[in-house]
Amino acid sequence: MELVTEDNITDLAAARWGTAHDPRTAQLLEALVRHLHAFAREVRLTEAEWMAAIQWLNATGQISDDRREEFILASDVLGLSMLVVQMNNRLDPDATPATVLGPFHIDGSPEREYGGDMSDGLPGTPLYVHGTVRDLDGKAVGGALLDVWQADTDGMYEAQVVTDEARLRAKYHSRSDGGYCVRTVAPLGYAIPMDGPVGELIHRTDISHFRPAHVHFLVTVDGHEPLVTHLFREGTEYLDSDVVFGVKEPLVVAFQEREPGPTPDGGTSDVPFLVAEYDFVLQPTGR
Amino acid sequence: MELVTEDNITDLAAARWGTAHDPRTAQLLEALVRHLHAFAREVRLTEAEWMAAIQWLNATGQISDDRREEFILASDVLGLSMLVVQMNNRLDPDATPATVLGPFHIDGSPEREYGGDMSDGLPGTPLYVHGTVRDLDGKAVGGALLDVWQADTDGMYEAQVVTDEARLRAKYHSRSDGGYCVRTVAPLGYAIPMDGPVGELIHRTDISHFRPAHVHFLVTVDGHEPLVTHLFREGTEYLDSDVVFGVKEPLVVAFQEREPGPTPDGGTSDVPFLVAEYDFVLQPTGR
Repeated sequence: MELVTEDNITDLAAARWGTAHDPRTAQLLEALVRHLHAFAREVRLTEAEWMAAIQWLNATGQISDDRREEFILASDVLGLSMLVVQMNNRLDPDATPATVLGPFHIDGSPEREYGGDMSDGLPGTPLYVHGTVRDLDGKAVGGALLDVWQADTDGMYEAQVVTDEARLRAKYHSRSDGGYCVRTVAPLGYAIPMDGPVGELIHRTDISHFRPAHVHFLVTVDGHEPLVTHLFREGTEYLDSDVVFGVKEPLVVAFQEREPGPTPDGGTSDVPFLVAEYDFVLQPTGR
Repeated sequence: MELVTEDNITDLAAARWGTAHDPRTAQLLEALVRHLHAFAREVRLTEAEWMAAIQWLNATGQISDDRREEFILASDVLGLSMLVVQMNNRLDPDATPATVLGPFHIDGSPEREYGGDMSDGLPGTPLYVHGTVRDLDGKAVGGALLDVWQADTDGMYEAQVVTDEARLRAKYHSRSDGGYCVRTVAPLGYAIPMDGPVGELIHRTDISHFRPAHVHFLVTVDGHEPLVTHLFREGTEYLDSDVVFGVKEPLVVAFQEREPGPTPDGGTSDVPFLVAEYDFVLQPTGR
């Protein structure tokens, strides 16, 4: 009988999980065992701390449902999400940088025309986000799908409110000249949900639990790497302390104030509005 | 603005979590960030694998409740529980070794007298586990509380069946001479629950999902380290492949077959029965 000891348990457990039939699964599980054990050994985890971790994991799973993704939030605030995004999106320096998806994306948003309003009369300053979808050579990319979502002026995403209708999210397509135009209301900075296990941990630290004002984009089109990113409002609060590490300088865009008059989609506004101009630069697949 | 990059994100995240107000919490969270990131970097975790991990964590939390502890089971099969037990119970080599609590302990078991039957007529071969509770100097320890639990002959713990009554679990006290005597039925080897996220992972490997036949003990008494351990049946299956790494050679005990006649508690049995004799050796606190 092989005796299990403090010295050999990591090797024993890693060897067992290394029997996974799929080589990549074996690699992942063996590495997981080694790193998990290395953590426990480094801090000499106590039994009470181990039990607190079990209870935290339980609570995090149990507060999650099809509208709340507390484990994604945990991954985001630990910097893991952004690390994974960066490792998997080593894009050309000239391409639009990728950033985290976040816990609030909802599939199946309704389609809108060029300049269509995804705010549906919700309060806020009208905002037009427009520009061109291009490739690395500067060539216009038509037919790109821009899946757009954002929080309301109370900092709430659709997933956080009771509603039967799509709310501050929509899908747009770039025109044949690459042009796109999103009509919405200006986002504000907001706090991440602090009433769950992630908030409980953050409350024990000096970490700012806010995100700077931003609009999310998921841009997809054949022949190019899918791009998950945000655009942030220049000069807004929390750009330096984004709780999910999502800010990258090239994604910070001026929201220009405009008097009533012509709008970027060829219409007219009776009230003051904001305009953010941004060209998405996509990386061709396999380049 | 500090730019977040693949190179600096780990340092940035570790520094943030290092602001936890309690120094031990800061140490734990900072180390957690570093090891979690080291794992993701070593395997270059893909976005699809990251999402699969999020969904696995959700499922594991959501299948858990006050009767099922899937995260404890996960910790057990990854060898983490046994590592934590061993790091926190570096006992004298002459003391009874500690092993994992497992996911099936229930608080508040009923008290039984010396030799009292905790099987309450459930099927199985009658088993007496008896011996002395001692300290490292061989001195009898009276008044020790032995919290005992085990699976039935179908491999099911109380937490896994529908019942309103305590089932195959009880509390005994050692007498002033240190003597204790538990009356139960002989446990059999059993499979861990395989219908959840932990089973789903194990199914992808060659890992045996069985545990060798055992009875759990939690022994506590003032002045001594609490002892969480099992006694295993000598010669039983799976001693070499315990899925939770719980077997230690000193905990493997002969279950001696006896003909009808006198029992260790001073009574008489009309049917054949088994006797396991074991002395628990407790380590004085702070030694």
